[in-house]
Amino acid sequence: MTDCPYNLVSGGVTAPKGFVANAISCGIKNPTATRLDLALLYSTIPCSSSATFTTNRVRAACVRVSQENLRQGDYRAVVVNSGNANACTGESGIEVARKQCSVIAEELGLMAREIGVCSTGVIGLPMPMQRIEPRLPELCRDLSDQKGHDLASAIITSDTCEKEMSIEIEIEGKPVRIGACCKGAGMISPCMATMICLITTDAAVAREHLDAITRVGVEYSFNRVTIDGDMSTNDTTIVMANGAAGVSLSPSHPEWVTFERALHDVMLEMAKRIVQDGERVTKFVTVDVIGAPNDQEAKQVAEGVAKSALVKSSWNGNDPNWGRIIHAVGYAGSLVREEKIDIDIAGLPACRKGEQTTTPSDELRDAVLARNFNVLINLNMGDAHYRVYTTDLSPEYVDFNRSEYAYWNQAKKDGLTH
Amino acid sequence: MTDCPYNLVSGGVTAPKGFVANAISCGIKNPTATRLDLALLYSTIPCSSSATFTTNRVRAACVRVSQENLRQGDYRAVVVNSGNANACTGESGIEVARKQCSVIAEELGLMAREIGVCSTGVIGLPMPMQRIEPRLPELCRDLSDQKGHDLASAIITSDTCEKEMSIEIEIEGKPVRIGACCKGAGMISPCMATMICLITTDAAVAREHLDAITRVGVEYSFNRVTIDGDMSTNDTTIVMANGAAGVSLSPSHPEWVTFERALHDVMLEMAKRIVQDGERVTKFVTVDVIGAPNDQEAKQVAEGVAKSALVKSSWNGNDPNWGRIIHAVGYAGSLVREEKIDIDIAGLPACRKGEQTTTPSDELRDAVLARNFNVLINLNMGDAHYRVYTTDLSPEYVDFNRSEYAYWNQAKKDGLTH
Repeated sequence: MTDCPYNLVSGGVTAPKGFVANAISCGIKNPTATRLDLALLYSTIPCSSSATFTTNRVRAACVRVSQENLRQGDYRAVVVNSGNANACTGESGIEVARKQCSVIAEELGLMAREIGVCSTGVIGLPMPMQRIEPRLPELCRDLSDQKGHDLASAIITSDTCEKEMSIEIEIEGKPVRIGACCKGAGMISPCMATMICLITTDAAVAREHLDAITRVGVEYSFNRVTIDGDMSTNDTTIVMANGAAGVSLSPSHPEWVTFERALHDVMLEMAKRIVQDGERVTKFVTVDVIGAPNDQEAKQVAEGVAKSALVKSSWNGNDPNWGRIIHAVGYAGSLVREEKIDIDIAGLPACRKGEQTTTPSDELRDAVLARNFNVLINLNMGDAHYRVYTTDLSPEYVDFNRSEYAYWNQAKKDGLTH
Repeated sequence: MTDCPYNLVSGGVTAPKGFVANAISCGIKNPTATRLDLALLYSTIPCSSSATFTTNRVRAACVRVSQENLRQGDYRAVVVNSGNANACTGESGIEVARKQCSVIAEELGLMAREIGVCSTGVIGLPMPMQRIEPRLPELCRDLSDQKGHDLASAIITSDTCEKEMSIEIEIEGKPVRIGACCKGAGMISPCMATMICLITTDAAVAREHLDAITRVGVEYSFNRVTIDGDMSTNDTTIVMANGAAGVSLSPSHPEWVTFERALHDVMLEMAKRIVQDGERVTKFVTVDVIGAPNDQEAKQVAEGVAKSALVKSSWNGNDPNWGRIIHAVGYAGSLVREEKIDIDIAGLPACRKGEQTTTPSDELRDAVLARNFNVLINLNMGDAHYRVYTTDLSPEYVDFNRSEYAYWNQAKKDGLTH
């Protein structure tokens, strides 16, 4: 977080009081691997919780079970695995997710419906429960408030680094903490990405208010990012608030806005880190569309540009190619007028009224050599605006995503496929 | 054309009687280059003509001028250049396109409105008219019915080969010819791609009927292809019918269907060749969505799959990854039901009711090693269907499209930019 206005503390999701975690290595993807791939987050005291899930019509079994559980009350614990998405696995996938919940609930003395379950990894393969189930009791022991980082490690897949943060704010003169961790890094698109984000706070916030704050926060963070335009079957954001800090918050509280802003800032920071660590990306580009006739068209244009393979390829080549940007503006579905479009790249005017400017092309070129830059598109047709955070598209991204076939070979050895 | 049911003849767009062409090298992109980059197609006798243009809101100057001219009557000639798209070039771009038309019209003894003008290449740079204009008179001389292939060469850009064909059918016992050539090869998306297609026939067909046949033909050919999902500012299909074969056709003619089918087959073959020669592609994939609740949703799903970077990357890696296909089906915007979705890859059942089948993964793998294969997605929710022709996405595509910056350097030398 550049110029972070917050007091950063260590601990990630276990920084807020009353939250503990554990992570172990089950060899979910590969029985001989030793990386952490199964994790548990647990609030030692009752808490309220909220969540948003993928809007993909194909939803993973874990998403279905988590939704079902959340409808009946709050989560007290969340189990997360990487290496297998438990998606497109039919009724048996649902049974697996329920089994994960029930075993953990029994160990922790909870009801199964108090467990959230998240999975991320390959789609379409049954979960290797023969390796997961025997380890669940162990996962529920050795929980610690020092293991937030282990959890952050266990949930990542193609991410190159853990993504976590924790901050402390002051409310009613008391310290209140917010902790978060998340994973990306491919199949990332608005509403939502192949992402999991867990957020904890030791403030007390009733479910209805937590729902509202989460919904708005997701809209301005995770729903504003696109890496490759592909929306996953598993995306989940879970927020848990347990009140251990001794502060109870609601919108009528005089310091509600302080808390709300801090939580939203944490979500936005997590979203940006997902983009920055997108698969094989070299650029972090903020696309702002302003002057749009309405919100919907502002969004269409911003996402159209952010998803264009040609625009993204040019960014990878440090090419300040406003011609490709305007072509994507033109087909994005908004009734733009070419002769009104202005485009600034990295603060330099690149296009005015649909034509090139006198900005020296070398200056534009130098500006996009930076890892981070902005593209500002003014449609000059109204007051609506929209922002998207995105990346370039690299040859290495495609190469990286060419084949998951090795996973299938392992799955065949495991008897999970044919 | 595999198993072509037609009598193939040579000559491309100059195979039909009464059509002549010429192509020269102007060094439009690079003054030292010698490749053909400026071409003219001319019907020596009056003809009717029809055209479809890009639906991009950002339209090249040549598209605007061609549309303006077509509203006033039929084209007798079409001038095409590669190397510069004359797009986003403002009023001066319009003047350039009009100048091209007026100079050619004068040379050929026509009116300027009888000229169609097409450009393809870089967006946003003024046309180097200092190199084009002096050569236009020469272009109008030396027209020949042997130069269809030269024209096909002059219009290609990143295409790896010329795309042309000409066939002869028999109507009223007389030979009737249809000739075509086109160019791709990036920025290819439905409605329409960075493509130019010129089609000639020596049948006589009135404008209204030619319009109808063109509109339907484009819908089932060029609007069904996607390579990178990027729609260009310049896409144009022009069909010219001059009657030199001595056969006059209309929908009431008993052999109309023969002609209509032949013209549509030529368009589809041109569209397929654009896909097959997509930038750095290694696969030609036909995506069929069936069992959709309505046409719109069938189209959304087919295009969603065909545009997914992850799906396309997996095809590049010979990975029969139905999990990625179903995830793209799920977010394409149709209200699909996961538990009803069946997916066949290359004729093999890969997914039934949203889950993996017992088809051995090695068999699926072997099937997608082929350059051409089909993906059949049955939503099992209705009777609507839609087909899209598409490709894989390769690391080489991204690498190829990383930078057009060299063009800008040349443009700077030409005084066309800063």
